Amino acid sequence: MPDIDSANHDAASRMMAARPILKGVARASDVIPEFGERMLLHAGPPIEWERMSGPLKGAVIGAAIFEGWAQSEAGAIILAERGEISFDPCHHHRSVGPMAGVTSPSMKVYVVENETHGNVAYSNLNEGYGKVLRYGAYAPEVLEKLHWMNDEMAPLLAAAIEEAGGVDLRALLAEALHMGDEGHNRNKAGSILFLKALAPAIAKVATDRKTEEDVLRFLGDNALSVLNPVMAACKAMADAAHGVSSSTLVTAMARNGTDFGIRVSGLGDEWFVAPAETPDGLYFSGFSSIDANADIGDSTITETVGIGGFAMAAAPAIVSFISGTPKDALDTTLEMYEICFAEHGHFTIPVLDFRGTPTGIDVRRVVELGITPRINTGIAHKEAGVGQVGAGLVRPPIEIFERALVAYAERYAL
Amino acid sequence: MPDIDSANHDAASRMMAARPILKGVARASDVIPEFGERMLLHAGPPIEWERMSGPLKGAVIGAAIFEGWAQSEAGAIILAERGEISFDPCHHHRSVGPMAGVTSPSMKVYVVENETHGNVAYSNLNEGYGKVLRYGAYAPEVLEKLHWMNDEMAPLLAAAIEEAGGVDLRALLAEALHMGDEGHNRNKAGSILFLKALAPAIAKVATDRKTEEDVLRFLGDNALSVLNPVMAACKAMADAAHGVSSSTLVTAMARNGTDFGIRVSGLGDEWFVAPAETPDGLYFSGFSSIDANADIGDSTITETVGIGGFAMAAAPAIVSFISGTPKDALDTTLEMYEICFAEHGHFTIPVLDFRGTPTGIDVRRVVELGITPRINTGIAHKEAGVGQVGAGLVRPPIEIFERALVAYAERYAL
Repeated sequence: MPDIDSANHDAASRMMAARPILKGVARASDVIPEFGERMLLHAGPPIEWERMSGPLKGAVIGAAIFEGWAQSEAGAIILAERGEISFDPCHHHRSVGPMAGVTSPSMKVYVVENETHGNVAYSNLNEGYGKVLRYGAYAPEVLEKLHWMNDEMAPLLAAAIEEAGGVDLRALLAEALHMGDEGHNRNKAGSILFLKALAPAIAKVATDRKTEEDVLRFLGDNALSVLNPVMAACKAMADAAHGVSSSTLVTAMARNGTDFGIRVSGLGDEWFVAPAETPDGLYFSGFSSIDANADIGDSTITETVGIGGFAMAAAPAIVSFISGTPKDALDTTLEMYEICFAEHGHFTIPVLDFRGTPTGIDVRRVVELGITPRINTGIAHKEAGVGQVGAGLVRPPIEIFERALVAYAERYAL
Repeated sequence: MPDIDSANHDAASRMMAARPILKGVARASDVIPEFGERMLLHAGPPIEWERMSGPLKGAVIGAAIFEGWAQSEAGAIILAERGEISFDPCHHHRSVGPMAGVTSPSMKVYVVENETHGNVAYSNLNEGYGKVLRYGAYAPEVLEKLHWMNDEMAPLLAAAIEEAGGVDLRALLAEALHMGDEGHNRNKAGSILFLKALAPAIAKVATDRKTEEDVLRFLGDNALSVLNPVMAACKAMADAAHGVSSSTLVTAMARNGTDFGIRVSGLGDEWFVAPAETPDGLYFSGFSSIDANADIGDSTITETVGIGGFAMAAAPAIVSFISGTPKDALDTTLEMYEICFAEHGHFTIPVLDFRGTPTGIDVRRVVELGITPRINTGIAHKEAGVGQVGAGLVRPPIEIFERALVAYAERYAL
């Protein structure tokens, strides 16, 4: 009989002791050498082209054009249909990406190192709001912005991060949670803390005045600037907790727009998968729930480590974006304590008397109580090429936790 | 019989309709032409040298050396004792200053214009934490920093604000209140929103790379950067509500370290004054309540217009700085609704279901209920030359509201 509580204590302690530092920006294929020719990473558990939802297909089309593998939507689709593009989850490569999460070999990624345990994680650059690749848009202006980010912004950020000696993302997140962020769907404070951390270094190392000005504006005006470094930080924290024998704690939750998958610390690299739900929320003008794609993205790595939806009590203003009332935000956090093993030692919520956020989802409790995690998310249009249509809340299907528990019982011969 | 409610409605509406825009940075004597030779502005109601407290005397000494009127502490004291320096409240010159509030003719000030009603207000530049003039310190490094701010930072800020087309401080404050600030003692979010607003323009107009880097760092690392522009914005809003015949709303609360004074909209420029209380709060290492000076500063202009202590429910994390619990912060705001005439139309508190902050202190209610305003403040050492020793809460003496009400009854022959 495994000592599950002891294993979970180890896993949760490792998750919270992890200290992710943003170390730099690099070309994806340089830091992820297993990147194959014409290979793309995507959010969520594994999926083949045929089963991909509209926004993921749209991001694949855009990435194929971005890489120069195709010149048009039609050309990109032919490549994908012929199997000439290979696909692998970001999560299989120490990486995470919001929404479609599509990361191609020449895209720049943030490099985050967990200084406590030495593991590394990556995430692509955030494009801001509007028509963006991660929501499945691939119009010329989407790709133009991606090229600017990759060729102009990324080198300046790389130099500035080095000049600044890195950015302590756990400290940044802890502070942002005291400034009305929950770290997933609301990163207003975190993004300007990120700007604040880098601005002097950007001024020092910039060689082109216009790029400097544009990057300072882009980082400051994009209230999601820090989401991707934060997600890489969360991945580094979650990975630190993965692989603890006998632990029932969830170490990954991710959606590819078709399926929702989880991984469990004591169950190796197996994904437990079921069809993803469609989020409920508020829609941008001109859109409604009939436009919504099923839940998509690796950004649930935030909830996996105790922030995002789990920290919504810290972010009451978010309800104007995702629907609901400040009381709902508070109740969401309180409910999550029911299914979590620990309270975070670094991430605290002022209105709850600085109580640590609910951290470390225990599949036993999820199944026993019938309470699934609450996830705070953007909503993508279900068709390729459109983009974001709203934001709201969603839960994973409970079957994946049940399946994980069955697998656990088999694996540990309970 | 005056229609008091109608007058208060007018005054509160003017206060909330005011739209203060940061327009620039100028030399104080250029925008305040009534600045006399060897004249200093100070916080609070009028006071002569002999009755000034330690921190105000310290700031006067520092300003006299800063201006070159004296070469030493002893020389500055002789000038002051001989009556060769004249003193006038900031409030008499459309101006406000935190803590000692000492503003000398050559100091640079923020220029804020209320675009709704056309009135203008000023405040000096914020020096950050540590040994600073506004807390009565005047060591060489204090004056050196002031010279850098005045000669290097101010011209760059002036050019950047012009390039940016001004900064909408009401919008900034509204956003900061959704990010855990209360706008007086906690301006963490506001200060980096200020950095965000100016950073691209700073990059565009800076002519010296080192100054640019230093200014971006100074603005970002000083969690009070925006306090002084915010105070000038509050002064512009309060002044818009001043002079409404029959109104019983408070349009200024200010302390000079010895006395606490208020002005009332319908009672002209008369100050109602009584000895200031000493704040209760948390002290920095090595200091205690025996070191504390009485309440000092014009920063109570924030509470006067519905933020600061009145908006503490928006800023639960502040209790780690000023003492108390998040519940106390909430209760402080709830109590202030009892004595306020209105709820702010622009400044809202997410956790209270986006209720407007309590705005427009009604002297009638203060006296009737025996509830005085709650003020969130820094604490200065009582001796000249030391600086800040803590932060906490304080209330004005109730006598000044009683006296104002008596004066009101006489004035309006009630």
